[in-house]
Amino acid sequence: METNSMQAEEATQTHILSPEQLLAHWQGHRKLTRRVIEAFPDDALFSYSVGGMRPFSELALEMIGMGGEGIGGIATGNWEAFPTPNTPTTKAELLKLWDEVTETINKTWPQISLQRFQETDVAFGQYESKIYWTLFYFIDNEIHHRGQGYVYLRSLGIQPPPFWERE
Amino acid sequence: METNSMQAEEATQTHILSPEQLLAHWQGHRKLTRRVIEAFPDDALFSYSVGGMRPFSELALEMIGMGGEGIGGIATGNWEAFPTPNTPTTKAELLKLWDEVTETINKTWPQISLQRFQETDVAFGQYESKIYWTLFYFIDNEIHHRGQGYVYLRSLGIQPPPFWERE
Repeated sequence: METNSMQAEEATQTHILSPEQLLAHWQGHRKLTRRVIEAFPDDALFSYSVGGMRPFSELALEMIGMGGEGIGGIATGNWEAFPTPNTPTTKAELLKLWDEVTETINKTWPQISLQRFQETDVAFGQYESKIYWTLFYFIDNEIHHRGQGYVYLRSLGIQPPPFWERE
Repeated sequence: METNSMQAEEATQTHILSPEQLLAHWQGHRKLTRRVIEAFPDDALFSYSVGGMRPFSELALEMIGMGGEGIGGIATGNWEAFPTPNTPTTKAELLKLWDEVTETINKTWPQISLQRFQETDVAFGQYESKIYWTLFYFIDNEIHHRGQGYVYLRSLGIQPPPFWERE
């Protein structure tokens, strides 16, 4: 690995991953989470949980709020709640809101400068950290709660979608 | 955001996050997972689960195997199983193995060139993808299964450690 030719190539390679790759990583996880929402029976999505935790609809709404508000804050420094005039009460309404956030993220992403990821900001007016850290927090929080949704599905006797599929 | 001075700064900022920041991100998650292992009663760690899933000891052993073998493969391209002569049967043994992987990751990390993260490799001789993708898979798989451990703990009536604490 330590040859001169490798080092020469390395000089042209200045990042672990590109912004385009990070967007694909995030949206890949969001596609999987969408499949987890779909896997729930309509009623269980809004009512079922294990160990006194929140039903998966509430976990999904947290992700929607975090991503929908968060992408704007990340891009502009203005942390404004994603408009959700009516809290979804059906799976179809929840998926519609999910897809709106997907579009918002895709549209907003190109506005984020590379510089921005290393800037410090106070996310949602409360949590101070570098922007890359905040963004990974959104993704990791989604993975964390989605993993909980897998347990809900398994305990309902439903096979969750494969974890490794992201398209 | 689009002023000339911002663009000038941007020219010196060539990454979303540095290798040091990514290592801290991974080890931060591993510290939290270690606290989740500690939070389980000894017997429940090896026997308790929900929905017919694996007990948390087995999920932790998967993380140990993936991280312990994976860091070597990432650094060198040689994917060799992390030596675990005896499968742990107590929490203390499991934590000891966890800490050995922590050390191995810290020692091996500086050998990874920046170039390497964008190389394509066949992880564990089976899964072809870019190295940055493989590494995020390790981290994400850990978050996913740890989230499941949170449900196990909650259903045992035990408060899990806070998700946002990574030190």
